Amino acid sequence: MPIITFTPQNKEIEVENGTNLLKAADQAGLYIEGDCAGKGTCGKCRVRITEGEAGDPTKAEKKHLSDKELDEGWVLSCQKRIKQDLTVEVPAQKEAHLRKTTLAGGVEELKADPAIEKASVKLSRPSVEDQTADLERLLNHLERPDLSVELRELTNFPRMIRDNGYKVTATISGNRIISLEPGDTSEQLYGIAFDIGTTTIMGSLINLAEAEVIAVGATTNPQNIYGADVISRINYASEGKTELKQLQDKVIEAANQIIRDLLKQTRVARDRVYEITAVGNTTMSHLFMGINPTYLAPAPFIPAYSRALEVEASALGLEINPGGRVTFLPNIAGYVGSDTLGVVLATEMDQRKDNCAAIDIGTNGELVLVANGKLMACSTAAGPAFEGAQIKQGMRAAGGAVEAVSYENNRISVSTIDDAPARGICGSGLIDAAAALIDAGLIEASGRFINPEENPEAVPEHFKNRLKKGQGGWEFVLVPAEDAETGEDIVLNQGDLRELQLAKGAIYAGLMILLKEADISEKDLDEVLLAGAFGNYVRKESSLTIGLLPQLPPEKITAVGNAAGDGSRMALASKAMRERAFSLPEKINHLELSTRPDFQDIFVDALKFQ
Amino acid sequence: MPIITFTPQNKEIEVENGTNLLKAADQAGLYIEGDCAGKGTCGKCRVRITEGEAGDPTKAEKKHLSDKELDEGWVLSCQKRIKQDLTVEVPAQKEAHLRKTTLAGGVEELKADPAIEKASVKLSRPSVEDQTADLERLLNHLERPDLSVELRELTNFPRMIRDNGYKVTATISGNRIISLEPGDTSEQLYGIAFDIGTTTIMGSLINLAEAEVIAVGATTNPQNIYGADVISRINYASEGKTELKQLQDKVIEAANQIIRDLLKQTRVARDRVYEITAVGNTTMSHLFMGINPTYLAPAPFIPAYSRALEVEASALGLEINPGGRVTFLPNIAGYVGSDTLGVVLATEMDQRKDNCAAIDIGTNGELVLVANGKLMACSTAAGPAFEGAQIKQGMRAAGGAVEAVSYENNRISVSTIDDAPARGICGSGLIDAAAALIDAGLIEASGRFINPEENPEAVPEHFKNRLKKGQGGWEFVLVPAEDAETGEDIVLNQGDLRELQLAKGAIYAGLMILLKEADISEKDLDEVLLAGAFGNYVRKESSLTIGLLPQLPPEKITAVGNAAGDGSRMALASKAMRERAFSLPEKINHLELSTRPDFQDIFVDALKFQ
Repeated sequence: MPIITFTPQNKEIEVENGTNLLKAADQAGLYIEGDCAGKGTCGKCRVRITEGEAGDPTKAEKKHLSDKELDEGWVLSCQKRIKQDLTVEVPAQKEAHLRKTTLAGGVEELKADPAIEKASVKLSRPSVEDQTADLERLLNHLERPDLSVELRELTNFPRMIRDNGYKVTATISGNRIISLEPGDTSEQLYGIAFDIGTTTIMGSLINLAEAEVIAVGATTNPQNIYGADVISRINYASEGKTELKQLQDKVIEAANQIIRDLLKQTRVARDRVYEITAVGNTTMSHLFMGINPTYLAPAPFIPAYSRALEVEASALGLEINPGGRVTFLPNIAGYVGSDTLGVVLATEMDQRKDNCAAIDIGTNGELVLVANGKLMACSTAAGPAFEGAQIKQGMRAAGGAVEAVSYENNRISVSTIDDAPARGICGSGLIDAAAALIDAGLIEASGRFINPEENPEAVPEHFKNRLKKGQGGWEFVLVPAEDAETGEDIVLNQGDLRELQLAKGAIYAGLMILLKEADISEKDLDEVLLAGAFGNYVRKESSLTIGLLPQLPPEKITAVGNAAGDGSRMALASKAMRERAFSLPEKINHLELSTRPDFQDIFVDALKFQ
Repeated sequence: MPIITFTPQNKEIEVENGTNLLKAADQAGLYIEGDCAGKGTCGKCRVRITEGEAGDPTKAEKKHLSDKELDEGWVLSCQKRIKQDLTVEVPAQKEAHLRKTTLAGGVEELKADPAIEKASVKLSRPSVEDQTADLERLLNHLERPDLSVELRELTNFPRMIRDNGYKVTATISGNRIISLEPGDTSEQLYGIAFDIGTTTIMGSLINLAEAEVIAVGATTNPQNIYGADVISRINYASEGKTELKQLQDKVIEAANQIIRDLLKQTRVARDRVYEITAVGNTTMSHLFMGINPTYLAPAPFIPAYSRALEVEASALGLEINPGGRVTFLPNIAGYVGSDTLGVVLATEMDQRKDNCAAIDIGTNGELVLVANGKLMACSTAAGPAFEGAQIKQGMRAAGGAVEAVSYENNRISVSTIDDAPARGICGSGLIDAAAALIDAGLIEASGRFINPEENPEAVPEHFKNRLKKGQGGWEFVLVPAEDAETGEDIVLNQGDLRELQLAKGAIYAGLMILLKEADISEKDLDEVLLAGAFGNYVRKESSLTIGLLPQLPPEKITAVGNAAGDGSRMALASKAMRERAFSLPEKINHLELSTRPDFQDIFVDALKFQ
């Protein structure tokens, strides 16, 4: 598989052949700016290929880049499919943005502050005059008589020090020595930060001595064979211990696969990785730890635990140093997990004095609001439509998915991922399509298609052949059968609009409830943060058009990338950040929307387009 | 195997058919007084059989017990071989003595004070109004938000509480929940105290809620196939990881055998045993924990560690509750182990204001002195002779061993264990024999036998045929060939006397060094404690005669039984005692005799008989 090296960050990622370069950068944890969700229209995602072939420029590249720039290797990252190893220079101003979003708080907080320390010492030799035992001799040299030690590390310690001139390096977690190594290994201190998503698992290998991300890897969560959504997996896990174990084994093996890849890429030794942090939704955290998630599914949605769990890597079978520590960050509630907590940590919402909302839409949708210095969070049953679920021709964001739709000059234009023949519609395409049809006047505020039979003059002539009557009512042809890979029209139908309304209505209503609790209105919001892939790929304008987001000027809406994963990295790199993460759940007031008598009213109101 | 129940202590022990009742009581942790080392001459070891057959009285019993007493079931415990289940009443005054020696400090300190606690609660039911996670709900009820929990116990906790009406019992060790059980199990709190001897492993099952020993078991240390002494085992373990693992496996399997026996006897469930304490010499503690003991053998005799090690039972494969804790008490030095520390703990030497020495002779010999409130300890290469090693016809204390020899009315009389035909000489027989021959004037102060050829008038006529010339010089026939099972004379020879001199000289010299360091003389000693089986079976008078003990009135010499094992029990039953045990090593000044320039001189002087 091709390896892409991004400079000056020096981040490497191994990707499938044919992967889009913009997505590879995202997987590598790099945030590349852009406003058009990869359609090639904004020209902002430019990067320079310094090693490897750039390939022929596309129409979009010719439009946005000069001949000189093209000669120098500049490309639009959204236009490039990777077919070989590349070294890619990411412009400096983007890097500043990256630091802000990936390791929070700006450059000044990037100092190394790992929770795990190493101490290298040369012991004095024992003698009949000084018969101090080996372990106590070490602790005296470390001036840490309070430390305890893993039995595993003590078993061959006497021979190890004598074979290595009494030079030894102790790795210390809290008040415990978790590893004893011959010689001086104090520079070799690594950890891995995981983001355990329902759909995708990502891991970042971090040099803890330098607080530097040195490699990033990702894989599909193989639990998906037991269901794409968390409820299916909870139900499967509830069948018995074997089933729960199967789900746990899947995610652990996927994590191990990422670990092996990261170590291979960087030639870091397994035993020099001492710590793992992880974030994920509450169900993912239960399954990762092998804890029965049964009672998360039915009301009142009770998790087995909410605090951070810290266990030995060997207890979970994670292939790092066997004494290494695994910390899953705390949950906030049954459907507001440590991923949301990671968003708060990475975006520093807990430190903000203004009013700010964060929206993280993945397989579920979580919302956080900080107002008057207080934090609130809720979850909404919103996600699946945005991932293409329950949409007639919905699909995940993959080659051939309609990912962008625009309405300009009375024309509706459609683009697909990789410019492949259309196969279906992904989340960003769904929102764009609805927004474009609203702009074109083809959808009423109620969410119904204009009925060309009742109201023929409302439908411009050139759309008449595209607004058709289908099995479930009126539908709009986005891609005609002859241009589609499937040989069928790719359409947005009335049912799809209803799903979209329910999803966006749930998120918007959730936000309204949070605002109401904080006693402010949407106009009082100083910023709305869009976290997750959703935030990177969906056009703000379309989201505003369909009423998914509050009616604010677009400049107040900021995509913050994979903030959950960034939170995991920060908690790994910094003890202070981790302590902040541990303290967050008690600072975040969770609202259970299902019990609010006002929710239905606000929700129904929120279903409207505009 | 017959089961013996001792009342009023209600202690049961399962023993091999044919076991001596006095020994069974010892195995059960009961101390039965007696001055004649089981020869039937003192008549002090009387107990009453209340259920089961007493059997025909022996000559010794007829001498010491009236017909009425015999009718009532009174027996001398040293005279009885067990052939069936018995209930045995131990007279009250003996019980008082028992408590003093087995759980130290007298009755007032027997209050339950376990390091592990149980808390039983009924949780409030969760609801949409109170979505607190299950674990946090428990911690709130316990009012212990600081507790962490074993991952293993959390995995099925949600279902367990819902299946059991939200009633749960938490077992807490320090700030960690090590077990979660449905319902109220707070009365079921057990632990096992081990004494890991080089030769014998003993375990006592203790009801921690009541601080009561409820069963006792013992087995031979199966490591003996790798050598009877610690040096052989260290050498074997030093060959490699496999060999070290073999030695560890042996002792762990023996401990598990004892655990299974104790649980079977008492019908206590394995998962209700949460804690193990252990004492043993430093080598035994290394092997039990699987830690390389290589550097204990050569000078400067450095242990891998000296502090107490605390590990999970499951990490060692010990078959109690898998989250149970195992604590091996701290070592003092390479040859002064936690067994010696246990002696100090059990005898409260650390609290004494007078001058007192303790001598623990097992496979090695350890000495402790408290004088002017300061504690000192040393080890001496003294043990093996007292266990029959390096003695021409030496053997362990088993059936047929010459165990007692006395000189009265110009006659030397000999008795064997179980009155069986003589097979050899055990430790107590060796000391008795030497003392008797000294009393009879047949051994010079230098340790040489009187030479009948040079000095015929020094040998009384009736001994002339028993003082013979053997291969290694003169030897005394204790049992003539025709009465011996081996068909050979059982003799004490010149070489045996030399071994005995070296052993007793080492101990006596060690004691002299301790006294010298404390700047007191042997006359200043207020008490000498004899710990271990040695102390129980050897006659004080003989020890005084051969000069093993300082020349004190016999009433200042006290046998304290298996004080090391008592120390293990006390540390198990009482958190306060355990903390005292942990603090002892820094209060005990270890003297390394091998480096003392004055040792050889004192040692040579100490070789003399009287």
